[in-house]
Amino acid sequence: MSTPYLSSTSRTGLRRHRERGRTDRDDLYAVLDAGLICHLGVIADGAPRVLPTGYGRAGDTLYLHGSSANTTMAAAAGAQVCVTVTHLDGLVYARAVFNHSMNYRSAMIYGTARLLTDPAERIEALRVITEHLTPGQWSYARPPSAKELAATSVLALPLAEASVKIRDGAPIDEPEDYALDVWAGVVPVVSSFGKPEPDAALRQGIPTPAHIRGGGG
Amino acid sequence: MSTPYLSSTSRTGLRRHRERGRTDRDDLYAVLDAGLICHLGVIADGAPRVLPTGYGRAGDTLYLHGSSANTTMAAAAGAQVCVTVTHLDGLVYARAVFNHSMNYRSAMIYGTARLLTDPAERIEALRVITEHLTPGQWSYARPPSAKELAATSVLALPLAEASVKIRDGAPIDEPEDYALDVWAGVVPVVSSFGKPEPDAALRQGIPTPAHIRGGGG
Repeated sequence: MSTPYLSSTSRTGLRRHRERGRTDRDDLYAVLDAGLICHLGVIADGAPRVLPTGYGRAGDTLYLHGSSANTTMAAAAGAQVCVTVTHLDGLVYARAVFNHSMNYRSAMIYGTARLLTDPAERIEALRVITEHLTPGQWSYARPPSAKELAATSVLALPLAEASVKIRDGAPIDEPEDYALDVWAGVVPVVSSFGKPEPDAALRQGIPTPAHIRGGGG
Repeated sequence: MSTPYLSSTSRTGLRRHRERGRTDRDDLYAVLDAGLICHLGVIADGAPRVLPTGYGRAGDTLYLHGSSANTTMAAAAGAQVCVTVTHLDGLVYARAVFNHSMNYRSAMIYGTARLLTDPAERIEALRVITEHLTPGQWSYARPPSAKELAATSVLALPLAEASVKIRDGAPIDEPEDYALDVWAGVVPVVSSFGKPEPDAALRQGIPTPAHIRGGGG
């Protein structure tokens, strides 16, 4: 059962910059829903490994997928993982080198990844992942065949132990530094979709559907 | 001693999609130099942890920094880590759900992180990190004080064991799917700098210097 709040554990509680912490579950949802890729951390052969990959969210479950042959996915199945989603929103130029920072929104989720085996749950998870990255495609493109499904591993991670950190706004300098003859401010980092580029092999007469990101239709 | 080529180990050799692998050291440099943040993977209390953080590169060394009080930095010091830098370049819409993909450039670096203790090396590493994210700021903003330096941990990671993966171009569908009445192509994901936003507390008469990212001057 989830509460509207994120519970604090020894690894999700913030020791420093507590003002950057967010404890509302809605903040976690917002960071995850706005992201395109995550970084999946696992322990493989005794060492950490960090893999960029796609994901999707349904309620309080995060779904990840990958090739059944992927060794990182295999290492994650049934094991402790950490999934981090990061949005870099800006470079924070301060008056002192030390106070330079970044504006960002990030979520870190800890837990044990469960390898999905139930066919219906696997399909639903793949639908969620597909719709997260490319909304509208699940019902538009050709559905997965049995062979394709067999080649895909799907993991579920409960949104039970998570931390959300957000930094925004202006630089924070030492009081005496505000008198310096040094520019300070924020340079936004903007991520956007470009105009869809049709495949050169696209059959003639297929217009760009309205649901394609970046200005279809 | 580095060679122009990245050596292959059991965890950097590609088992699948070998066409996405790059073995030139210059490709590694290009991915790292184009990035703004990395994801640092460590093992903390027996579990993986993935922290987004800034970095910089000098030759065949990657530098990372963080607060001396940061438990993830502490867990990384002298330990095996994995640093991943990812650029998401596009969403690849295929004719089949299964063949959807992403265009990306990514680098994964494995190794043991060394906590810097030599004062001159620490300063040089901080210069490299600062100049990576905010070029021109090291000589422009107020330099770190002794107290600020003491509050900062700096790690070095050799670019010895690394893999680089790049996917670009069009979707690759099954031969029979090209006849489907389904749009396919790539939607670019573009990251850019916005116009610099001066701090509201900025002293009057300080113009935006030309070296500030996003169109200073």
